[in-house]
Amino acid sequence: MPELRKDPVIGRWVIIATERARRPSDFVPETAKPKGAAECVFCPGNEGKTPPEVLAYRPHGGPWTLRAVPNKFPALQIEGELVPSGEGIYDRLAGVGAHEVIIETPDHAATLATLPEAAVADVFFAYRDRLVDLKKDPRFEYILIFKNHGAAAGASLEHPHSQLIATPILPKMVIEELDGAAQYFRYKERCVWCDIVRQERRDGQRIILDEGGFLALAPFAPRFPFETWVLPAAHQSSYEQIQPNEVEALARLMRRLTGRVNRVLGEPPYNYIIHTAPLREGPLQHFHWHLEFMPKLTRVAGFEWGTGFFINPTPPEAAARFLREGGD
Amino acid sequence: MPELRKDPVIGRWVIIATERARRPSDFVPETAKPKGAAECVFCPGNEGKTPPEVLAYRPHGGPWTLRAVPNKFPALQIEGELVPSGEGIYDRLAGVGAHEVIIETPDHAATLATLPEAAVADVFFAYRDRLVDLKKDPRFEYILIFKNHGAAAGASLEHPHSQLIATPILPKMVIEELDGAAQYFRYKERCVWCDIVRQERRDGQRIILDEGGFLALAPFAPRFPFETWVLPAAHQSSYEQIQPNEVEALARLMRRLTGRVNRVLGEPPYNYIIHTAPLREGPLQHFHWHLEFMPKLTRVAGFEWGTGFFINPTPPEAAARFLREGGD
Repeated sequence: MPELRKDPVIGRWVIIATERARRPSDFVPETAKPKGAAECVFCPGNEGKTPPEVLAYRPHGGPWTLRAVPNKFPALQIEGELVPSGEGIYDRLAGVGAHEVIIETPDHAATLATLPEAAVADVFFAYRDRLVDLKKDPRFEYILIFKNHGAAAGASLEHPHSQLIATPILPKMVIEELDGAAQYFRYKERCVWCDIVRQERRDGQRIILDEGGFLALAPFAPRFPFETWVLPAAHQSSYEQIQPNEVEALARLMRRLTGRVNRVLGEPPYNYIIHTAPLREGPLQHFHWHLEFMPKLTRVAGFEWGTGFFINPTPPEAAARFLREGGD
Repeated sequence: MPELRKDPVIGRWVIIATERARRPSDFVPETAKPKGAAECVFCPGNEGKTPPEVLAYRPHGGPWTLRAVPNKFPALQIEGELVPSGEGIYDRLAGVGAHEVIIETPDHAATLATLPEAAVADVFFAYRDRLVDLKKDPRFEYILIFKNHGAAAGASLEHPHSQLIATPILPKMVIEELDGAAQYFRYKERCVWCDIVRQERRDGQRIILDEGGFLALAPFAPRFPFETWVLPAAHQSSYEQIQPNEVEALARLMRRLTGRVNRVLGEPPYNYIIHTAPLREGPLQHFHWHLEFMPKLTRVAGFEWGTGFFINPTPPEAAARFLREGGD
C-alpha cells in the first residue's frame, strides 16, 4: 500500500509509492526509447492491456475516440480506508486515492496542436466528466488534472495522454493559492485572478491570446521561461462548472497555444496542470480556476530546491511577444 | 538589472534575470558538451577569465588550492540599492544580491569523493569564510550555499565548484522551515531537528552514517529517492558557528557519503544545499542548520508542480539500508 508521509518541519506531504519501489539498479540512465506504436498499450487493439475503462467516448456507437482508465502503476490506491498513524514525531496516512490516465486519442502520433478541434474539446470534456464522477467519493478532497508531454517532462509513454490524481488531503500548493486569494479578497472584496485579467487586458504586453472568453497570458512572476496561464475571463471557481460552449472555446485556444509554442520553441516537452477549487467547497468568490502551462526548457537546480525562488532568464513580456507574434 | 518579482496570489518571488535574457533560439536541446579541461575557465592558468577573486587558499604561498570568484553571469547583482516598485497589483524589487562561485580545487576531474580529506575540508571552510564576509553587507537577509554536480543537475561547467547566492529577502522555503520549527518549539520547547536526531538514533533504520558529531540520514518524508540530510548531532543554528574540528568531521562524512552514493547509484548527478539561520538573527533555539543532498534520479513532472506533493518510489528505510551497506 502506498503511504502518505508528512515532513515534521514544514508539513510537506510526500507519497512513498511502495508498490513500485525502486532499487538502485532501477535508476538506469535514460536511453532513447523506441518510437512508434508497435507495442503501445494505449493504441487501439491493445485495450486488454489496460485496466478496465472508467470512461470512453464512442461516437455513434463506433470505435472509441477517447478512453479513461485507472493507472496500472498507481501512485495512490483506490481501495482502503484513510487510516492515520504516528511514529514518534512523524505522521503517516494510508495512500488512498485515485490515479487515472486519459488516453486522448487513438492516434499515437497526434498532439493537442495537430488533433482536430473537436478531438481537443473531447479531452477537456473528459476532464470535466471524471471530476464530476470522482467528486462523489467522499474520501477525496482534491483532484489534480495534469499532462506530461515528452520524456523530459516526465511522460513515460509516448501516446498522447493526460492524468489525474485524486488525493485525500488538500495539496500544499492549492492551500497556498486558497490562502493568498482569500487574504486578497478580504482586503479588496475582489477575486485576485479577476483583477489580474483586468490589469493584463488594460496593459496588454503579457497577453498571448484573448478569445472566446479565455485568456492565455504570461504571468507577471513566472517560474519558467514561456510559462503561460490560461483562465476564463469571467469568474468561475471550479473547472466542472464549465459549459459545453466554453469547453469548445478553451480547446480552440489550447490548440492554438500549443501550436504556437511548437513553432516558436521547436516542439518542446511540457507540463500543464489545472488548479480548480477543492471538491468539498461550493462555488467560491475568491478562487478562479486556471491552467498553468510550463514548457520544459531549463533545469531546476540547487538554488530553486533550496529557496523556493526560481531564476527565469526570459522576461514574461518578451515571452508573450514571441508567442503573440508566433503565427497560426 | 535583474528584477525580483512577486506572484500576486501566493507571494512566491522569482528572479527575472534580464541581463542574460534568453530568446527562443537560445533554448537548444542539450548536446553532450566536450569533456575535459582544455578550455575550462576554472582551471589553473585561466585565472584571468574569471572576475577577480574574493577568496583564495594558497598554502605556504604556493599556487592556489581553492578560489572564490563572483559569478560572471550573476542571477543577482552586487551594485545597486534595494528599490521596491509597484505596477498595479504587482510588486517588484531591484535584483540586488551576490552570486559567487567557489572553485573547489585546481583539479578539473576531481569530485568530493576523490579529493583528499583536507581538500574537502577546505570547501567547507570556504563556505564559512564567505558567509562571515558577506554577512557584513546589511542589504542581505540570507545566503544560500549550493552545489549542482553534473549537467542533469543543472551544472553548466564541469570543473568542481559550489555556488552561493545572497538575497535581499528571506526565501520562501527558509520561512516555511523557520515557521514550522518555531511552532514546534512553542509547543514542545525543543528543537525539531534535535528531536529528529534523537528519534532516528533510537530507531536506526534511516541512519546512513553517524560519526564525528554529524549524522547522514534518509529523512522520514523524502521528496526524492536517496535524498539524504546531513546535520550536526548537537544543536547549532548557523553554519558559520562551525568550529575547525567540526569542519573536518563534516568533510570526512561528506566524502564518505558521496563515495557511497557513487558506488551504489553509479555516480549520479546531484544537488545539495545548506539551510542555515537567517543572517540577521542571533543564535536560534528552534533552528538547526542542515545540508540536504538530492541525487538526480527521477524527473519532476506535472503532479509535483501542481500540488507541491512529491511521489517518491524508494522508501527512505530502503535507501538508507543500501547506502549504509554501500561500503567505503
